Amino acid sequence: MKRTVITEPAAGRDELDHREKDSLFRARAGKVIPSGMYGHMAVQKLPAGYPQFMERGEGCRLRDVDGREFIDFMCGWGPIVLGRRHQDVDRAVSEQLDRGDVLNGPAPVMVELAETLVEMVPHADWALLAKNGTDATTTCVSTARAATGRRKILLARGAYHGAAPWCSPSLGGVLPEDRAHLDFFEYNDLESAKAAAERAGDDLAGIIIAPVKQELGTRQEYATAEFARGLRQLADSAGAALILDDVRCGFRIDLQGSWAPLGVQPDMAAWSKAIANGHPLAAVTGSEWLREGAEAIFVTGSFWYSPVPMAAAMATLSVLRDSDALDRIRVAGESFISGLRTQAAAHGFDAEVSGPVQMPLLQFADDSDQALSSAFADEAVRRGVYLHPVHNWFLSAAHQEADIAQALEITDEAFAALGRKL
Amino acid sequence: MKRTVITEPAAGRDELDHREKDSLFRARAGKVIPSGMYGHMAVQKLPAGYPQFMERGEGCRLRDVDGREFIDFMCGWGPIVLGRRHQDVDRAVSEQLDRGDVLNGPAPVMVELAETLVEMVPHADWALLAKNGTDATTTCVSTARAATGRRKILLARGAYHGAAPWCSPSLGGVLPEDRAHLDFFEYNDLESAKAAAERAGDDLAGIIIAPVKQELGTRQEYATAEFARGLRQLADSAGAALILDDVRCGFRIDLQGSWAPLGVQPDMAAWSKAIANGHPLAAVTGSEWLREGAEAIFVTGSFWYSPVPMAAAMATLSVLRDSDALDRIRVAGESFISGLRTQAAAHGFDAEVSGPVQMPLLQFADDSDQALSSAFADEAVRRGVYLHPVHNWFLSAAHQEADIAQALEITDEAFAALGRKL
Repeated sequence: MKRTVITEPAAGRDELDHREKDSLFRARAGKVIPSGMYGHMAVQKLPAGYPQFMERGEGCRLRDVDGREFIDFMCGWGPIVLGRRHQDVDRAVSEQLDRGDVLNGPAPVMVELAETLVEMVPHADWALLAKNGTDATTTCVSTARAATGRRKILLARGAYHGAAPWCSPSLGGVLPEDRAHLDFFEYNDLESAKAAAERAGDDLAGIIIAPVKQELGTRQEYATAEFARGLRQLADSAGAALILDDVRCGFRIDLQGSWAPLGVQPDMAAWSKAIANGHPLAAVTGSEWLREGAEAIFVTGSFWYSPVPMAAAMATLSVLRDSDALDRIRVAGESFISGLRTQAAAHGFDAEVSGPVQMPLLQFADDSDQALSSAFADEAVRRGVYLHPVHNWFLSAAHQEADIAQALEITDEAFAALGRKL
Repeated sequence: MKRTVITEPAAGRDELDHREKDSLFRARAGKVIPSGMYGHMAVQKLPAGYPQFMERGEGCRLRDVDGREFIDFMCGWGPIVLGRRHQDVDRAVSEQLDRGDVLNGPAPVMVELAETLVEMVPHADWALLAKNGTDATTTCVSTARAATGRRKILLARGAYHGAAPWCSPSLGGVLPEDRAHLDFFEYNDLESAKAAAERAGDDLAGIIIAPVKQELGTRQEYATAEFARGLRQLADSAGAALILDDVRCGFRIDLQGSWAPLGVQPDMAAWSKAIANGHPLAAVTGSEWLREGAEAIFVTGSFWYSPVPMAAAMATLSVLRDSDALDRIRVAGESFISGLRTQAAAHGFDAEVSGPVQMPLLQFADDSDQALSSAFADEAVRRGVYLHPVHNWFLSAAHQEADIAQALEITDEAFAALGRKL
């Protein structure tokens, strides 16, 4: 990408170029880490303005290793829902660390957390705790198969449900057998789901679905109520499990689950990311009829019973439940989106912001190669607003009015710079 | 099991019976957690003396929710290698928590940790970090397949390599396809491995093996040097990857990997458990020829880049490398084992302690139903020594001479009680 000459005094060229340490760490990483970095936090394919290595974070602010400061609209790709270094979560973590973490059995907080989830989530009669979102989605699939004695799992084409061989978006190292008995439908196309269910016939174990269509580089789409209700009916009539993959959206939109506003409850849900405001935890919640299935499978992990992340989750869920945090996230998102839309129009761009206001994505018309969204994100991140060109963003309860206002000043400059560049 | 009447004054009946809180939490867990508890920390199948819920831990001492104190010989099932609340690890964790955890990219400590692993482990040219041991073993298998373009993975029958559908010891919710292209040999039986390699032919991607045969309820066996060298040759002649699953033994026996004493280096190794003294982290290390394979797969997780557990790992590995911690673990293990052998003989039991001294297991002759090992473990845990009837135990650097001496006083009472019971 052609290098932009920056003219705004607020962010002079020197500041934008200061990245010696990041380059140094990238060089070192290139020797000892596959591809220099792997997975969703690798920035090789992002515009050049992105730092790879971060130094610290607090509230909705981040600093990279070169001291560049950012207003953060990725929230660690979702886990940070209350803001970093939230005092209630920090206190819970510190107190539990004092008592010890990996004991020889779970601590009482595991029971309290399972009870909290069962109380909070309408479909939940039980909860199982794990580490990765992928642990949770995989456990849901295994539970559905164990409970029904059937094999077929239906999922939306292109949907992300984790990074194990059965669901990874890459086929590297994956065998066809890893994906046996999966069948696909199109998101928000009930007819295609019905056709897939018919193909599965009496071998249909479950349907796994994300509450929102959030694929890289594509317009985000809420599930329609008709689609959600239709999947619910399909699962019911087949005696199969409807599994909501709420790993990404969970605890950010509605504490009852991200399809609660649509009036649709799944039989099982996979949770992770925001559940403990950044501490490593995942959960599965399930309905009574799936309890035996969950009891028939063997899943575990060395750190799955660690009480520290559970204590963090109890603190996080308490704040989410007992404060206006979710409202504030929504309001911050609305304010940011509204500002972006106005700016885009003012600078003459045909841009659209899609998705839940708590996790929006800005895209440009006629931008199928994502050149514009990449250039805009690059201009923004170089000036101190950390958002993403193709993946949905995340707002947190730490995004205050002043943060949004400051971020919008920067995005206005980013739009202006983009305009000069074209 | 018949309830033993305890007569020793050091641990009167009242103390042994005090478990109201554990019962209460079990009853609550029974409502909201599958099976009341799941996975390796579920105690339903253990003798009645085992607490399910733990309150705190420090050094090699644990306390359950009813205030019963234990000298711990499970170390959280492996993760605790320096002892709980180790000050160097705690300090590193606290400092990193202050800087923030789930940032929008890794922190420099990720590079430093990968460099440390590459420097420490002879076969390692690169390292990839994850959360669960299962993440690491699964990544090794995917990498071997991606690097070789082949499918077959050989493993020892009965060996534990994690809890994903491809390797879980249970078949609940697992499909035959999840285990396609696995083939089995017998541990320490090179001929059976050769036969499996022949069956795989030119489709052999890798051989995954634990450094020690450590199956539940069976005598532990070190790999023989002949077997380890034989697998190395098998992999070499087939152009396949030799994968050492060092999740359980790693960082407790030899920092170069648990087959370093045998003079055998794998092509890849899976690590977790003790790597960060209890903080959630896993790693894969690999040789140069597998780097492209590791770069061809997509693996990730929301918390895989979190710097806090990496800072804990740096502190843990520093202590292990720069102090006599591993020697102390070995000495503590030898002392404990030696005492147990003497006590067993003195009480007239035909008992054997097998396995690495750092992770021993005591078993009785003619005890195929494990009634004796269960009864002994029950007597021990009721008196305050937390060990396991069928799973190997773990020693840590926090086990001092006085702890071992006190534990042996208790096990002597446990042997005596067992003798009276028979």
